[in-house]
Amino acid sequence: MNLVLLEPSECAVDGRARLEDHRATHVLQVLRAGPGATLRVGIVDGPMGEATIESTEGGVVTIVCRFSAAPPRPRVDLLLALPRPKVMRRLWAQLAALGVGRIVLTNAERVERHYFDTHVLDAVTYRPLLVEGLQQARDTHLPLVSVHRQFRPLVEDELDGLCPSGDRLVADPAAARTIREAVGANAADRVLIAIGPEGGWNSFEMRLLEAHGFTAVGMGRRTLRTDTACVAILALVGDALRSSS
Amino acid sequence: MNLVLLEPSECAVDGRARLEDHRATHVLQVLRAGPGATLRVGIVDGPMGEATIESTEGGVVTIVCRFSAAPPRPRVDLLLALPRPKVMRRLWAQLAALGVGRIVLTNAERVERHYFDTHVLDAVTYRPLLVEGLQQARDTHLPLVSVHRQFRPLVEDELDGLCPSGDRLVADPAAARTIREAVGANAADRVLIAIGPEGGWNSFEMRLLEAHGFTAVGMGRRTLRTDTACVAILALVGDALRSSS
Repeated sequence: MNLVLLEPSECAVDGRARLEDHRATHVLQVLRAGPGATLRVGIVDGPMGEATIESTEGGVVTIVCRFSAAPPRPRVDLLLALPRPKVMRRLWAQLAALGVGRIVLTNAERVERHYFDTHVLDAVTYRPLLVEGLQQARDTHLPLVSVHRQFRPLVEDELDGLCPSGDRLVADPAAARTIREAVGANAADRVLIAIGPEGGWNSFEMRLLEAHGFTAVGMGRRTLRTDTACVAILALVGDALRSSS
Repeated sequence: MNLVLLEPSECAVDGRARLEDHRATHVLQVLRAGPGATLRVGIVDGPMGEATIESTEGGVVTIVCRFSAAPPRPRVDLLLALPRPKVMRRLWAQLAALGVGRIVLTNAERVERHYFDTHVLDAVTYRPLLVEGLQQARDTHLPLVSVHRQFRPLVEDELDGLCPSGDRLVADPAAARTIREAVGANAADRVLIAIGPEGGWNSFEMRLLEAHGFTAVGMGRRTLRTDTACVAILALVGDALRSSS
């Protein structure tokens, strides 16, 4: 935990907050911090800053926070064909750590229907995992999440509302154009990257994406599993955006 | 499984091989392939090619292989401070899939000693995981693996023998130089990238690495967990090498 993240409701107007859960345990047992020590803190979807520990009596850590600016909002959004629940569970924290503005989960021909019937898609499950990723990466921007059981209505009717601006890329092992070439050529402010299921998008899905502004990009001849591909591709998009700006 | 990988001993001189294990199950139940169908095959540390299924009687898949060239050897080597066993177990297949020539696992101050006492570091455990990653990514080059319980003798005495040529980079969240700038500036044939433990290398370790030719490289302001960092950094190094050659 490289940042202690607070919910807006947890921080009083005078900057005081009480930690009693795993964050208190982390402060006391991992950081071994006591009264007077400073911590990096942030508010979910708000600013970051520093906190001074006021007391640690009875395992309750009381801190006084001074906030400065909010970190920049991640410039990448992700359209992801829903992977199986075990993989999705592992991905939440990693996606938040890598920095994603919006996570749009979708069906596709090669997504099994029962993948949708899992508590891994319940906010009560994934929100703490997203927060864990933000605390790891020192960010406060909680990714927005939506789940779509129908691919075509999503792409045709809903996606423009969810992701109104920026470049659209779709990962395709067969594509010769690299992520960097595609991002560098346009230097848009945001990038929406689509990553298909194990086995790939079918040809209808790929055509529909291309008809809605997605450019196919590759990353060499290796075929990666969804979770590895997500991390690798988000790293490449992030790097391309940083160096094009 | 995008490639059926065979051990050299499994393939007869006439190109015939018998699959009876999970590879046979995969061919029959996932690919639903029967006699006459073709498969992508490879030999561990050898060439890739195509195989024709001759028979599938009794669940034993007999194939006849025709090999062509070996894939190019991965140009990245990894010096990794040993992560905890659960993380290391998940990394093996991902590292092989991303393409790593050599995996050098090392101790560091912030590595807990008991991490070394795990069967995750036994070849009998990790070799099938590496093979799984190669079959995913369609590669035949099994990463070479060595485990080092002492950091200083490794860096001072052994590393030049293990990784004699190429650029040396060390991931450092504080570094301003990007991976692409470092790789592009030299355009070496190989890159050895060092990735530290959760919490980072200590200052002695970082100085020792820099004294032995490692250049610090960063990838933005986000701090990632070891497993996410490995995938992200290997993707960036691979991309930089591809575009510099």
